[in-house]
Amino acid sequence: MQVTVIGDSNTNEKNYKIAYELGKILAKEGIIVINGGRGGIMEAICKGVKEMNGISVCILPSEDKREANKYCSIVIPTGIGFARNSINVLAGDGVIAIGGRAGTLSELAFAWIYNKPIVVIEDTNGWSNRLKNQKIDDRRTDIIYSATTPKEAVEKIKDLIRKEINQE
Amino acid sequence: MQVTVIGDSNTNEKNYKIAYELGKILAKEGIIVINGGRGGIMEAICKGVKEMNGISVCILPSEDKREANKYCSIVIPTGIGFARNSINVLAGDGVIAIGGRAGTLSELAFAWIYNKPIVVIEDTNGWSNRLKNQKIDDRRTDIIYSATTPKEAVEKIKDLIRKEINQE
Amino acid sequence: MQVTVIGDSNTNEKNYKIAYELGKILAKEGIIVINGGRGGIMEAICKGVKEMNGISVCILPSEDKREANKYCSIVIPTGIGFARNSINVLAGDGVIAIGGRAGTLSELAFAWIYNKPIVVIEDTNGWSNRLKNQKIDDRRTDIIYSATTPKEAVEKIKDLIRKEINQE
Amino acid sequence: MQVTVIGDSNTNEKNYKIAYELGKILAKEGIIVINGGRGGIMEAICKGVKEMNGISVCILPSEDKREANKYCSIVIPTGIGFARNSINVLAGDGVIAIGGRAGTLSELAFAWIYNKPIVVIEDTNGWSNRLKNQKIDDRRTDIIYSATTPKEAVEKIKDLIRKEINQE
Repeated sequence: MQVTVIGDSNTNEKNYKIAYELGKILAKEGIIVINGGRGGIMEAICKGVKEMNGISVCILPSEDKREANKYCSIVIPTGIGFARNSINVLAGDGVIAIGGRAGTLSELAFAWIYNKPIVVIEDTNGWSNRLKNQKIDDRRTDIIYSATTPKEAVEKIKDLIRKEINQE
Repeated sequence: MQVTVIGDSNTNEKNYKIAYELGKILAKEGIIVINGGRGGIMEAICKGVKEMNGISVCILPSEDKREANKYCSIVIPTGIGFARNSINVLAGDGVIAIGGRAGTLSELAFAWIYNKPIVVIEDTNGWSNRLKNQKIDDRRTDIIYSATTPKEAVEKIKDLIRKEINQE
Repeated sequence: MQVTVIGDSNTNEKNYKIAYELGKILAKEGIIVINGGRGGIMEAICKGVKEMNGISVCILPSEDKREANKYCSIVIPTGIGFARNSINVLAGDGVIAIGGRAGTLSELAFAWIYNKPIVVIEDTNGWSNRLKNQKIDDRRTDIIYSATTPKEAVEKIKDLIRKEINQE
Repeated sequence: MQVTVIGDSNTNEKNYKIAYELGKILAKEGIIVINGGRGGIMEAICKGVKEMNGISVCILPSEDKREANKYCSIVIPTGIGFARNSINVLAGDGVIAIGGRAGTLSELAFAWIYNKPIVVIEDTNGWSNRLKNQKIDDRRTDIIYSATTPKEAVEKIKDLIRKEINQE
């Protein structure tokens, strides 16, 4: 199972800690963690994954792998700029969001288009907060789900991905 | 001057007519019209442009130029899927939105990241309505502006682009 | 009809002049000229097109339209780096090559994959010379054709594109 | 260390066996193996990696992870078509080629542009054979190196990558 985590490169201490916990839990579950590989939420996620000896795959905008944060396990420097946001989302079986600004919003929109299950963590502000329990448009019958803790987010995304697989 | 127009491939009669008027006005002004090249709003825009002997540049997701609507002047079949939404927005000096679902939302997010002036046309529903007169995040001091008619939208985007050029 | 012209950003006086002539002839024929938008061969092409009041579409690697040469009619700053070489080739109904180094080679390979007719101009060195009258692999029954002058190259590519259209 | 292996999706028994051996050796060395994730050479590589409990990262053209061969450890469905060839090459610290048709040729050209060390395995035909011990153009002082066995190829690419790192 591969899960994409999205969130901003500029973040606050509270969200950093949530992302770090989320990384640890995903790694403990043996889930491969796709992310954007830069600072902020992405660094926190990779740090958590690394501590649990998990695997993080960091999909960078630039051609230069030195843009990656120091906790990344595998680095994919795409060289395609923010068009890589589309790949980040395609590479996960589901998406978890923490807070988020315009970059995260573009990824939520792509996740919706690509029919990926989405869970946001509550009280992390930004676009996660603005879109929780809502639809982006009417093409899907489900919503953007919300969870109160990283642990609950992982349980929810696992459930949603399993349902998706069973439907196929 | 190049202006990107964004909006959904599925649309209603009212928005189709607005997009068609917008295409005519942009072409009359000698503005090159960038768009996604498919049906709905994109078709209406290209139809308006064609009637005024203007130039529309249609940037398609697929490798196949037959995906383009029949009014496109120039067709760019990118073959990069919806990652092409990033290019659509980069190719305009400014962006005008009509209605819009998840694809349009991803383009509004990219336009915000790339610091493009944005004008939405009011009463066209969808994400144009949800984001009018708002910021997507705090990185910019301006907002997503709104206009009540296609004519007003063209005047506004021209003003905003001129200010942008003067600041550089 | 849209034709892609490929060649290096660093070139010599002889090839520059050939590209400039080619641009003039393509524009006179009413053909839209797709190219990479940078210096060298690309600049020469756009200069020729501009002098005949034709249309050149310049597909740039970077996000910044100021990377374009000053003769471009329409600028598409893709922001996807050299992955844009794939789009350059997809956007033409056929491809003409002049000289060329590694970037041009990648475009010849993509043109072969996308089943685009290809004509190289003889005595322009580089990969045009190394691949003329050859196949890149066995997936196609045709070859990379060669022409001795820009005029002959335009006649050949027009013929090949018409045959392609008739087969569809 | 991350190494990209390139080669065709259609291949013969001999090259399949070479790729499979190469995958085993790379995995034994603890090297992460980047590849295109499809059949032929790519499948053979991933099969070898899997048998040694290594990690293969499969970067697909399509949006659909089911396009991946069954031995892939991690699947990145890019949705950007053959423009993903540029990412394949960027994601490796060095590149090893086996045989190869037009797709592999585009990747060799990109590897040359991105200044990646390149080693081809001898007697595997295709573009590996046509370009061994040659330059693609004059921008680099080195050549495309060749090796007679998978084992020698891995030793060579490791040496070349280490030299590259020391120069930075």
